[in-house]
Amino acid sequence: MYLRWALRSLSSRTRFFGRRPESFLMEARVGTLLSGYASSSISKALGFRESLFWGSRGLHDIRYQIDQERNTLAEEPLDPFSLVADELSIIANRLRAMVVAEVPKLASAAEYFFKMGIEGKRFRPTVLLLMASALDMPLPHSVVDGVFHSLPNELRSRQQCIAEITEMIHVASLLHDDVLDDAETRRGVGSLNFVMGNKLAVLAGDFLLSRACVALASLKNTEVVSLLATVVEHLVTGETMQMSTTSEQRCSMEYYLQKTYYKTASLISNSCKAIALLAGQTAEVSMLAYEYGRNLGLAFQLIDDVLDFTGTSVSLGKGSLSDIRHGIVTAPILFAIEEFPQLRELVERGFDNPNDVDAALDYLGKSRGIQRTKELAQEHANRAVKAIEALPYSDDEDIQMSRRALVDLTHRVITRTK
Amino acid sequence: MYLRWALRSLSSRTRFFGRRPESFLMEARVGTLLSGYASSSISKALGFRESLFWGSRGLHDIRYQIDQERNTLAEEPLDPFSLVADELSIIANRLRAMVVAEVPKLASAAEYFFKMGIEGKRFRPTVLLLMASALDMPLPHSVVDGVFHSLPNELRSRQQCIAEITEMIHVASLLHDDVLDDAETRRGVGSLNFVMGNKLAVLAGDFLLSRACVALASLKNTEVVSLLATVVEHLVTGETMQMSTTSEQRCSMEYYLQKTYYKTASLISNSCKAIALLAGQTAEVSMLAYEYGRNLGLAFQLIDDVLDFTGTSVSLGKGSLSDIRHGIVTAPILFAIEEFPQLRELVERGFDNPNDVDAALDYLGKSRGIQRTKELAQEHANRAVKAIEALPYSDDEDIQMSRRALVDLTHRVITRTK
Repeated sequence: MYLRWALRSLSSRTRFFGRRPESFLMEARVGTLLSGYASSSISKALGFRESLFWGSRGLHDIRYQIDQERNTLAEEPLDPFSLVADELSIIANRLRAMVVAEVPKLASAAEYFFKMGIEGKRFRPTVLLLMASALDMPLPHSVVDGVFHSLPNELRSRQQCIAEITEMIHVASLLHDDVLDDAETRRGVGSLNFVMGNKLAVLAGDFLLSRACVALASLKNTEVVSLLATVVEHLVTGETMQMSTTSEQRCSMEYYLQKTYYKTASLISNSCKAIALLAGQTAEVSMLAYEYGRNLGLAFQLIDDVLDFTGTSVSLGKGSLSDIRHGIVTAPILFAIEEFPQLRELVERGFDNPNDVDAALDYLGKSRGIQRTKELAQEHANRAVKAIEALPYSDDEDIQMSRRALVDLTHRVITRTK
Repeated sequence: MYLRWALRSLSSRTRFFGRRPESFLMEARVGTLLSGYASSSISKALGFRESLFWGSRGLHDIRYQIDQERNTLAEEPLDPFSLVADELSIIANRLRAMVVAEVPKLASAAEYFFKMGIEGKRFRPTVLLLMASALDMPLPHSVVDGVFHSLPNELRSRQQCIAEITEMIHVASLLHDDVLDDAETRRGVGSLNFVMGNKLAVLAGDFLLSRACVALASLKNTEVVSLLATVVEHLVTGETMQMSTTSEQRCSMEYYLQKTYYKTASLISNSCKAIALLAGQTAEVSMLAYEYGRNLGLAFQLIDDVLDFTGTSVSLGKGSLSDIRHGIVTAPILFAIEEFPQLRELVERGFDNPNDVDAALDYLGKSRGIQRTKELAQEHANRAVKAIEALPYSDDEDIQMSRRALVDLTHRVITRTK
């Protein structure tokens, strides 16, 4: 399996450097191109077949290289991020180049966030590229004709474009969510925009949104345009729901989950669906892609809410407590209210008073709030796994590996400590 | 001509109230539906032919009503706004209903601007609806078949949608342009967002932008999506150019005009082009629509710059002087620098000192700055007129009237005093 995987990785790199496989094989003995990354899943999608390579010159050299790689891979567990590392870095570079080159004034604002992404993990693009590979199966009524080899290539670059657009929308929403009112800045609540200025943050976000729209339009798929435009609307709705709520809404788990879908899960679920739609998948498969993204997103946010209380340790109060200090009520507190109704009064007061925060933490510590939130996250993670398992069977090893990586991501989301 | 116009107006209203022309004619003798507005240009576009009416019952009553209308119309000069008044109010109501119903929290923010539009003149939608009528001529290779009557109807509603989208983008940009940095709020520079809060202004703008994207996607025309996405990018670029400039750029007329195109003229020019594209017009006609919008937009902004100095009177210093007090250098000052190079030094200092503003006004008063700005605006207005005159000839009276209204708008833009 690793042999085939590595060969695909090889072919993908050839395509990215704009060279024909034949010319690449002449140089392959140097072996340098195979170093660096473990593997990449884009190869088959880019339209190459490993049959091109068997019996070609230089094969011995490649086999030697692969044997060495196999040793490395065998020691490592499956890493979803490294499977798409090549493409992630292409996408990251394109995003950065775009921001820096076009509007230098916005570079400092927008690039800051993209840099953060490069240093950390690019969660959303990783999910989307893996989803693209996981759905890379023959379509029910597809016709294998002369354009068979070029078509998947074009499809993959359109799916990469979805990953870029998703990241642009995500960063734009981060920039805009952090815009502060005068009152907040006076209270000294810090944010990045406190440093870079509200105005620049708004413009940088608008710039990214307009770029996302232009890129979306270039895909010439009106269903996908509509889907991602709706996501932007959801992000706004979610933020609005969080900004100002009635005391009734503040204590409602239903309201909280709806807001969480809008703010976090809508982007990843609808862009997963867009990946499936671009591939021409059926409504059923597109819905499974959506369900995976939705449940992964919800699980991610529920764990985020736990970590805001516990941080990297399991002890309460070790997190940043930034939600509750901003008066934002999340799942752990909502579960705790069910055990300690007297907590409700504190929630309704809005946590302007630090003593109320301490009192709420006391109740939370005595309750099963944290545990039940983790259980809910696990439930959503399970549903995400089920969506992947419900995809049409494929015996293709790349597809199977990509699906395993998507399943692995659900475990990582649940067990992460930062 | 007025007879035909009024009949078309009549038929359009019938369609809007969802009634068949026959049933309308039964009631027409009451004549109430013909009161209120002078005329409407949407009728022919909505697919009705006046031949439907000749020889029908109730014609005498309609003729009587029209004779009365003709008297009123003959006394009045052509009013571009009243030509499309029916459609404008439909568009305005749809926009307001959309904002209010969907996200109540944003209603106060976004509706404020739409209310302003209703009380004042809806400049952009008026231009776009008149452009739609002005280009409502047979296409070179169109086929007149069974769907002839329904097709123009659908086209007109798609063009109305462009007018709505344009207004949404415009209001969103107003909301975001007014977001202030903490420093600015501290200096006491007022804006609407000072009252409503930066955060709400950002969200309301984002909401309108996302709605504009969803509406755009529903048009299923990727060229139009791309065109208007580029406009959003231009609005951001224009604002960024204004925010921070080198002293060289601050004194450059070229830089100023480029910024003005991005901030003001791009939206109206590209949406005019979108109107032509939706109608399936040739590249030449689409470019003339674009040229009209571009030159009208530039003329509009140049006069705006003059009015910032003169206000409703012709005397200098009677305007709000808000540009120069914010350190924004516009055409009158740039022309004045050519006569008084010593003014350049004041411009480069950024007008933080009120004495510098007074000194600059002195120089401007001694110069031909105001006059030359008006002349440049007139030049652009003339170019806009030429673009209309260059459109393919049509002997259709509605088309001719709409084109005259577009020419009339260029005069109004030049001669306006507020």
